[in-house]
Amino acid sequence: MPDSNRQWRVADYPGPDQPISKAHFAWVSEEVPEPAEGEFLVQTAYLTPIPAQRGYLDNKQSMFLGESLPLGAVMRGRGIGKIIESKHPDYSPGEIFVGSLGWQDFSIQRPLGNDFIFSTRKITKPHAPLSLHMGILGQAGGTGYFGLLEGGQIKAGDNVLISAAAGGVGSVAGQIARIKGAQKVIGITSTDKKCAWLCNELGYTAAINYKTENLDKKLAEYFPEGIDLFLDSVGGNILNTALKYLAMHARVAIGGYISTQYSSASSIGPGNYYNLLFKRARMQGFVYFDYWDRYDEAEQVLSKWYDEGQLINTEYLIEGLENMPTALAGLFTGRNRGITVCKVN
Amino acid sequence: MPDSNRQWRVADYPGPDQPISKAHFAWVSEEVPEPAEGEFLVQTAYLTPIPAQRGYLDNKQSMFLGESLPLGAVMRGRGIGKIIESKHPDYSPGEIFVGSLGWQDFSIQRPLGNDFIFSTRKITKPHAPLSLHMGILGQAGGTGYFGLLEGGQIKAGDNVLISAAAGGVGSVAGQIARIKGAQKVIGITSTDKKCAWLCNELGYTAAINYKTENLDKKLAEYFPEGIDLFLDSVGGNILNTALKYLAMHARVAIGGYISTQYSSASSIGPGNYYNLLFKRARMQGFVYFDYWDRYDEAEQVLSKWYDEGQLINTEYLIEGLENMPTALAGLFTGRNRGITVCKVN
Repeated sequence: MPDSNRQWRVADYPGPDQPISKAHFAWVSEEVPEPAEGEFLVQTAYLTPIPAQRGYLDNKQSMFLGESLPLGAVMRGRGIGKIIESKHPDYSPGEIFVGSLGWQDFSIQRPLGNDFIFSTRKITKPHAPLSLHMGILGQAGGTGYFGLLEGGQIKAGDNVLISAAAGGVGSVAGQIARIKGAQKVIGITSTDKKCAWLCNELGYTAAINYKTENLDKKLAEYFPEGIDLFLDSVGGNILNTALKYLAMHARVAIGGYISTQYSSASSIGPGNYYNLLFKRARMQGFVYFDYWDRYDEAEQVLSKWYDEGQLINTEYLIEGLENMPTALAGLFTGRNRGITVCKVN
Repeated sequence: MPDSNRQWRVADYPGPDQPISKAHFAWVSEEVPEPAEGEFLVQTAYLTPIPAQRGYLDNKQSMFLGESLPLGAVMRGRGIGKIIESKHPDYSPGEIFVGSLGWQDFSIQRPLGNDFIFSTRKITKPHAPLSLHMGILGQAGGTGYFGLLEGGQIKAGDNVLISAAAGGVGSVAGQIARIKGAQKVIGITSTDKKCAWLCNELGYTAAINYKTENLDKKLAEYFPEGIDLFLDSVGGNILNTALKYLAMHARVAIGGYISTQYSSASSIGPGNYYNLLFKRARMQGFVYFDYWDRYDEAEQVLSKWYDEGQLINTEYLIEGLENMPTALAGLFTGRNRGITVCKVN
């Protein structure tokens, strides 16, 4: 039994427009806690930073994926780990557990079932490595899966656009769109290297480097018949430009708005929204956790595709709990490629 | 048989931000045309100006409710009239016809069926006055009906917000929402007099004068549990403010964007669109003519409600073809109240 529990705690709130960094967290160590009746102790194996976690360091309530955290709190974050000690009749040492473990080595847990971002689940048939359950079979995969199927109502033959295509969700969603019979899948990302990766390894039809290419012209070129489905987690100018190129009855699935979410420019909206009227199109927000009761379905389907080699793992592995702040920061600078996963123990 | 055909022709294009007026039209008279084989001559009874007609005087293509018109063309507009002379086997003198008659006394027509804004239809059971078929039983009623049922997926118990509530569509839609079992129906309009009209005669629960009241505060007050359905034809600041107050799974039905459509400020978008994500809500564009093949259904239902006294006629009658430019202009200044209809012959 280990005798210390390393933790990252919230030390400071970054202001709007200020990049998040290690400076906003404090690295502490405390004793490993003891489970009470009905609880169990979990040792963290992997954590997954996602852009929404930045919101926990907003000093206003984020109202979205959980409230902001007070200074001094252990940083919130979902992970997968092994049960070490249990005082719950249905949970035994050695079993694999997914939940809101926090940025720490150990945490006291209890089964919360379908409780939005605190939803928990026992993994009865663990894949190796366990990180898969936090990646293509977990939140990134599930967000792509439900984003396309429910948010975007994907149909075979659709011409699909995906923003943040080399990010966690985009790197799985592009593959899912292809598997579901999309006619073309175009990705938007921030470097030529990522563009090549999307096309050569993930089966994207083409990719646009929005930093060096003219997005407007490229969309006109790639979508002469319009965009049927746009999976967007970026917002801002990318969303607004894409709205110009909607096909009739297009569906825009909104899974995030990272370009403006933490910026003081957040009041700039998509002026081209009126094209929803011209094209009788739809813009629909969706959140992965709303589909937690369909986790089995997503996991089964995604596992099958993975086992058949149709879906490849796009994990971007970072080693060591000490590197979690850097892992989170990398989501905003475009440094990470694919699904960022941190190996903790 | 009359010997002259009075017409309004397009004489000039108003610039962006410039109000439309009589100065943009030329009043001419020509001979009454003769139908060829397969055609018939219709004498216009009523015309209905709608905001979208302003788009026909844009010198860019409007891509929405029909292309813009060249200078010198007879102004486009839908109307109802009587067949005077026919060279079509299925259409006889005396029958009542709805179609794109234009701003004129007489027009040559042929049956076009479901042809978007040029859709035609014979009225086999005419109501008196015929203007009803251009109002609550016609485009205004149909837009409210399909906007709420299809665009907005209205459900009993919904808390409903309607912008331009004292306009043609809004004055019917508020009544339909009430009939369909909405818990409350709040209207937004531009004068206290119209507010009183909405509440006292049309059954709106309450109304907001957006020119003198604080819309943000009023929406917070009227929608403590959020807006379930927002039928919007205004856009701009009204849409953006309403987006703040969406309930979970809200539906925003976009039927127009009159506040910015003809203005150079059209690039300002709804910055609060991200609330679609927070509330897993939907914004959906809809257009009446897409449901032309369900015209029978809408007419039947609306007629029944009208005959039962559940739905009252909100017609704003203007007399004389010579007043059509003023009738259209009045849609943009807030002068007209209800469904603007012009009696031509």
